[in-house]
Amino acid sequence: MCAHVFLIVCDGMGDRPIEELDGKTPVEFANTPWLDKLSEVGINGIMHTLGTPGIVPGSDTAHLALFGYDPHIYYSGRGAFEALGVGLEVKEGDVALRGNFATVDENLNVLDRRAGRYVPEGDQLAAVVNGLKLPEAPDVEVIAKHATQHRCAVILRGPGLSHKVTDTDPHETNAKVKIAKPLDDSEEAQKTANIINSLSGKSHELLKDHPLNKQRQERGDLPGNIIILRGAGQVPNVKSLTQLYGIKSAVISTNALYRGVALSIGMEHLPVSETKGDYIVLAKKALERFDNYDLFFIHVKDTDNASHDGNAEEKVKVIERIDEMISYLFPKVESKEAYICVTADHTTSVKAKNHVGDDVPVVIAGPEVRSDSVKSFSERACALGGLNRIRGIDIMPILMSYLEKTPMFGS
Amino acid sequence: MCAHVFLIVCDGMGDRPIEELDGKTPVEFANTPWLDKLSEVGINGIMHTLGTPGIVPGSDTAHLALFGYDPHIYYSGRGAFEALGVGLEVKEGDVALRGNFATVDENLNVLDRRAGRYVPEGDQLAAVVNGLKLPEAPDVEVIAKHATQHRCAVILRGPGLSHKVTDTDPHETNAKVKIAKPLDDSEEAQKTANIINSLSGKSHELLKDHPLNKQRQERGDLPGNIIILRGAGQVPNVKSLTQLYGIKSAVISTNALYRGVALSIGMEHLPVSETKGDYIVLAKKALERFDNYDLFFIHVKDTDNASHDGNAEEKVKVIERIDEMISYLFPKVESKEAYICVTADHTTSVKAKNHVGDDVPVVIAGPEVRSDSVKSFSERACALGGLNRIRGIDIMPILMSYLEKTPMFGS
Repeated sequence: MCAHVFLIVCDGMGDRPIEELDGKTPVEFANTPWLDKLSEVGINGIMHTLGTPGIVPGSDTAHLALFGYDPHIYYSGRGAFEALGVGLEVKEGDVALRGNFATVDENLNVLDRRAGRYVPEGDQLAAVVNGLKLPEAPDVEVIAKHATQHRCAVILRGPGLSHKVTDTDPHETNAKVKIAKPLDDSEEAQKTANIINSLSGKSHELLKDHPLNKQRQERGDLPGNIIILRGAGQVPNVKSLTQLYGIKSAVISTNALYRGVALSIGMEHLPVSETKGDYIVLAKKALERFDNYDLFFIHVKDTDNASHDGNAEEKVKVIERIDEMISYLFPKVESKEAYICVTADHTTSVKAKNHVGDDVPVVIAGPEVRSDSVKSFSERACALGGLNRIRGIDIMPILMSYLEKTPMFGS
Repeated sequence: MCAHVFLIVCDGMGDRPIEELDGKTPVEFANTPWLDKLSEVGINGIMHTLGTPGIVPGSDTAHLALFGYDPHIYYSGRGAFEALGVGLEVKEGDVALRGNFATVDENLNVLDRRAGRYVPEGDQLAAVVNGLKLPEAPDVEVIAKHATQHRCAVILRGPGLSHKVTDTDPHETNAKVKIAKPLDDSEEAQKTANIINSLSGKSHELLKDHPLNKQRQERGDLPGNIIILRGAGQVPNVKSLTQLYGIKSAVISTNALYRGVALSIGMEHLPVSETKGDYIVLAKKALERFDNYDLFFIHVKDTDNASHDGNAEEKVKVIERIDEMISYLFPKVESKEAYICVTADHTTSVKAKNHVGDDVPVVIAGPEVRSDSVKSFSERACALGGLNRIRGIDIMPILMSYLEKTPMFGS
């Protein structure tokens, strides 16, 4: 047995029937000969990634599940994944948060949660708090790194921290920056909340008169005069895919969050340039390193973006370009060298412009699968397949069972 | 309501498409008019016995699940089932292990894990340690009984024991007999490991110069000069099927393990002679005692054996002979006196020669079932049936519900 797996997750690909698409879903409407081919030779099913139909999956929790880790047990908050995804090391015990450079007035009322979105000075602004130690907890170090646009990642590193704290980000404008609060009675949560509140004030103190912010204001941009924080989280304390299955795995994704989740469970990152809608670069990267890894996790974000934009036509186009990418990988199924699994992390409704709780389709094609009678890939067609209904956390053991890597329970 | 149930488990019957069978699975390829008849008049589904698709079920855990007991909660190790299966009484608190008479050199290197497999002196060799009390724990008694060939069952009986210990069996030749280690920090596990290690040494001391071993060596056989131990387990502390459902149930199986699992949850054993591939004796035994039991668990091992041997043709033949057996039971469905449920404990791939994580088909035929549109019994056909995807632990409540024996939850 030396087969490989391509796990292709099309973010938010699942959808509901859309009037302007003749009552079809985008994946039903799209012309997808290769996805259909996978369904024809493969085994199909319907899946709720969290295993709780109707509950709306987040991207982070859904991906943890797809990698085989029950998010109800292992998920704490998005911050740690984002920090990993932007290239920071996140250690056991660290608490990581997502940050925004935001614009506040002198009363800490938020005028713009994103300081106008365009923040090319992010690296220097993040440097202002990076390495900071606050008087409340001199044993804790603040690590900050600019991500994209107005975004940054913040890590608190030191003893006795907890992710059980609320955000300082008010998640709306014309609201005051919030005071982080502990979410349980632990000393750790209280300590962490104190540090975050101190850091919040300190960031404003250090940024409000920063020369780069003066320059921004001079040229008419909003100053990034505070860092507002959200999504405190820790890396899941789990065995890696390598430890569980003895495999080497790699993530191919242009988006920090998904890289972060993948890195947190032991995948290696294979960098690619921005796809600009051409996903063939993702397939080529995987094929280039084919012999080096057992599992390739390939992530496409644009299906989700099109849904959030309410753009059905664009979503159809993205799906058709994903289909084209699959044509590059399919020969490895034909030569019995690989399995291809295509699915989504959740349904993102073009009409609702948001994640909803509906199931997603899943197909697995490859040498040893029990093919079924499904002939096309879609939410409705796959629901009649041989996999029937599965949960997100079932996917990885199923794939690993084809590689004969899944452990036995019992004897 | 006075219907009965035949629960027929064809061990490892599930399989994957096999090239030499025209891309069909053995059950698809086999000529099975009676199984197909069951599917036609019955309700069908696909099932992962452990409820965790992809995870590879052991035989012991899968059967616990099929009897309605969640192995994630109640399974400790195979030893207790094997001991029950060979006719020993296993009490609450006992720790039971599987033993092999093995051949070691003077440095306790294992030369043959099975002492040549042929050990007709097993009864006398087991008697050497039976009743032993070791200086480490004079309150614990060793009970040993020869099973078949090189196999024996060993029970430790006394206060303060634990199954959380590792094997002394190194599971390979040319490796030293292992030192049993506690798997947790409990005194009980440490005590049990000490006893096992002492017993391991003592068995070698008592067997190495045993006259029967001298005779074995004189006639050119390897001596059974130590007992190597594995699979420490305790009987699940559960209510019996009788306590749960008020039924009488019986196991018909020629294999110790399956009898053991069945006995552990309160079935009675109906002995039959070796089937030698003719399973009709199993059906006849059930029919003979039809009025005495509500549930008959009939187990056929040969499907699994054929898979482990990589013999697709033999597996097809075994399935066809199982089909013939069903012809003897089917009249009881026609007369509305009984339900027949046919399934497998796991998929054993002829190609992989091992258990794999794929689902198994299940059919239930009988007076009150909602039949579906499935017309033939197989992994793929049953997946489209009215039961949809179920878990192993669902089977027993479903069957008991047809007998109106399943308790209500709520009111």
